[in-house]
Amino acid sequence: MRIAVLGVGLIGGSIGLAAREYVEDAEVIGFGRNPERLDRARELGAIDAAAGSIEEALAGASACFCCAPVGALPEQIDAALAAAPDDCVVSDVGSIKGGIVEPVVDQRFVGGHPIAGAETAGVEHASADLFQGATWYLTPTQRSSGVLFERLHRLVASLGARPVAIDAESHDRLLATVSHLPHVLANVLVTQAAGALGEEDAALPRVGPSFRDATRVAGANSAIWTDIYLANREAIAAEIGAAAERLRTAAEILRAGDADAVTAWNEHAADCRRRLLEADLAGGTVHELRITVPNRPGIVAEVALALGKAGVNIVDMALAPAPDMRSGAITLWIAGDEPANRARVLIDDLGFPVAEA
Amino acid sequence: MRIAVLGVGLIGGSIGLAAREYVEDAEVIGFGRNPERLDRARELGAIDAAAGSIEEALAGASACFCCAPVGALPEQIDAALAAAPDDCVVSDVGSIKGGIVEPVVDQRFVGGHPIAGAETAGVEHASADLFQGATWYLTPTQRSSGVLFERLHRLVASLGARPVAIDAESHDRLLATVSHLPHVLANVLVTQAAGALGEEDAALPRVGPSFRDATRVAGANSAIWTDIYLANREAIAAEIGAAAERLRTAAEILRAGDADAVTAWNEHAADCRRRLLEADLAGGTVHELRITVPNRPGIVAEVALALGKAGVNIVDMALAPAPDMRSGAITLWIAGDEPANRARVLIDDLGFPVAEA
Repeated sequence: MRIAVLGVGLIGGSIGLAAREYVEDAEVIGFGRNPERLDRARELGAIDAAAGSIEEALAGASACFCCAPVGALPEQIDAALAAAPDDCVVSDVGSIKGGIVEPVVDQRFVGGHPIAGAETAGVEHASADLFQGATWYLTPTQRSSGVLFERLHRLVASLGARPVAIDAESHDRLLATVSHLPHVLANVLVTQAAGALGEEDAALPRVGPSFRDATRVAGANSAIWTDIYLANREAIAAEIGAAAERLRTAAEILRAGDADAVTAWNEHAADCRRRLLEADLAGGTVHELRITVPNRPGIVAEVALALGKAGVNIVDMALAPAPDMRSGAITLWIAGDEPANRARVLIDDLGFPVAEA
Repeated sequence: MRIAVLGVGLIGGSIGLAAREYVEDAEVIGFGRNPERLDRARELGAIDAAAGSIEEALAGASACFCCAPVGALPEQIDAALAAAPDDCVVSDVGSIKGGIVEPVVDQRFVGGHPIAGAETAGVEHASADLFQGATWYLTPTQRSSGVLFERLHRLVASLGARPVAIDAESHDRLLATVSHLPHVLANVLVTQAAGALGEEDAALPRVGPSFRDATRVAGANSAIWTDIYLANREAIAAEIGAAAERLRTAAEILRAGDADAVTAWNEHAADCRRRLLEADLAGGTVHELRITVPNRPGIVAEVALALGKAGVNIVDMALAPAPDMRSGAITLWIAGDEPANRARVLIDDLGFPVAEA
C-alpha cells in the first residue's frame, strides 16, 4: 500500500514512521517544499522515498495525508486531489475542519484530525507511537465515498489511533471549547495582569502557581495560532461569548455576597473538573498529592525516581517554588487509588510531608 | 521578644519556626482552638509554649500575628486587640485586606499578607524558610502607630520576607488580578467544557496540556475560597468585568478575520507573559524547553536528575503525556541563558529531542 505524506514534520513524520512500522507492505512517499527536511525525514526512517512533486508523490497512492499548516491546507488538498488516482483516499490532519472540509466536493476526500503532538514541531520529534490510543477525528460528509472512508478508518486504526467520526461543525465547536478558548483566556489574563502592574519594571508578586498554570499557553506560537484562530473564528467567538456570559453570572453571584451560592458555584466547578479529568485519563480516580520539599536541584528527580522505581506513573506534575527558591511544593496527579496510595507511602518514606489536595 | 501566634497552621507555624530560628530572644506563644494541633505545633518546634486563651497568649507580647481563616479574622483581631498590651503590634496574614483593615480603628493594628504557601495547609508543612525572599504586604493606615509599624516591618524582614507597604485597596485589586481572577476563569472553563461535552459519560478529547494547565485550580477548596471570594468580591467582580470586556474585544478581532490583527493581539499577550515571568523570577530570561520522551516511569527522574547533578534548577515544569501514555513531552522552564544552554546539552546527551519553544 503506497501512502503519500505531504509535509513531513511532527505529524507527517509520525504518520510515516507508524505506517512503516505497523502497516503491512506500506511504502511511504514524502513530499515537502523544503528538500533538507525531506532528506532528514528519510534519514530518520519516516519515509521510504522523497518525491520531487505532489504528482510524483501521489502516483499509484492508495492514501494521502495532507499535513501542511492549517492556512496552507486548502491549496494542498486541491493539489493532492488533482494528482490522486481515482481510488485514492485523501485526508488531512488540520486542527480545524469546517472551513477545510466544506469547500471540498470530491468524494475521495475525508477530513481528519489526530489529537496528538500539537505542541512540538519538526520531524525530529516524530514517533511511530505518537498516535497510540489517540483520538483521531474523521469528518466524512455525505459526499464521501464509503469505501474510501472505510479504508481511511482502518488505516488510522492501524497507526494506533482510535478513529472517531464527527461532523466538521461539532468538531470545531468541541476544539474551540477545550483547546482554543483556554488559549484566549490565557491571553486575556496575562494582558490584564500586565496592565494592572502598569509600568515596565513592575514585578509580579509571587502568588503561587495558579497564575503561571493559567497562563502557560499565553501568546502561543503565532505562526501556528493565528491560522488556528482565524480558521475556527466563528466557533471560538461563540465560545468566548458564552464564557463572557458565565463571567457575568459569576460576578453577579459574588456581588450578591451569599456564601452558600458562592460555595455552590465553586463546588460545581470542582465536580466538572473531576469529571473531565477522570474521563480524560480513564485510569480511575485521579489523586492530587501535594508534597512539601526543599527546592534544590535534584529533588524532583528524587521524588520521580522513587515513584518510577515502584512503577507508579505520574500523569501530571506542577512545581511551585516558594519565593525563596529554597523550598517549594510539588503537586502530582496519579491515576488510580492503588498507585496513589503507593505514592503516598513512598514519598512519606523520603521524609517529605504529603497531603491529598 | 514575646510573639503571639493565633492559629498555628501552615502560616502561623512557619512564623513560629522562623521567629525561633531567626529572631534573637524570640519566645513564641501559640494559641488555637484545636488543642491537638497546638500540641503538634509544639512538638514540631513551631511554638515555645501553648496558651490556654487569647488573653494568656497576648500577656507580655510585643507582637501578635492573627492567622485565622479570612472569614474568622475580624473577630480574632478584635479579641487580640482587646487582650494586647498597649505597646504590642497586632497584625494578620489574611489574603485580602480591605474588609479586614478598614473597620479596625486601633493604632496598634497593621494588616499584613505574606505571599507564601497558600496551597498546602497544616503545621506539618510549615517551614522556617517559608518566607525567605517572599513579598510580605503590610497595609498601614493613617491611624497606625509609626513606632509599631516600624517594629512589624523589622520583624517581618527578620523572618526572611521583603516587607512592602501598600494600601489595602490596591492590595486587593492586585490580588484579584493575579490570584483570584485565574481561579474564576478556571471555574468558568471547566463548567463550559463540561457543558459542551454534555452527558455524564462524555469523554474529554485528549487535547494536550493547555486545558489541564488552565483548569488546575478550578473548584479550589471551598472552605478557603468561599471566604476569599466573598471578602474581595468587589475587586474580583471588577476584574471579571474587565476580563469580559477583553474577551469581547478578542471576539471582535477574530470575527473581523484580519490575520495581522490576530497576530498582533497574540504577540502582545506573548510579550506580557514574558515580561511578567521575568519580573517574577528575576533570574534573567526564562527559557522554555520542550523535550520529547518515552513516557515510562522514571523518565522524569532521569531528566531532572541529569539537570540536578549539573546544578541546573528547574523553575517550572509541565508534563504532557501523549494519549498512548507511552510517549510525551516535558516542558521545562529554566531561568538564565547559561543554565538553559547547559540543560539543552545535557538533554541532548540523554538522547531526547529538545527544542526551545
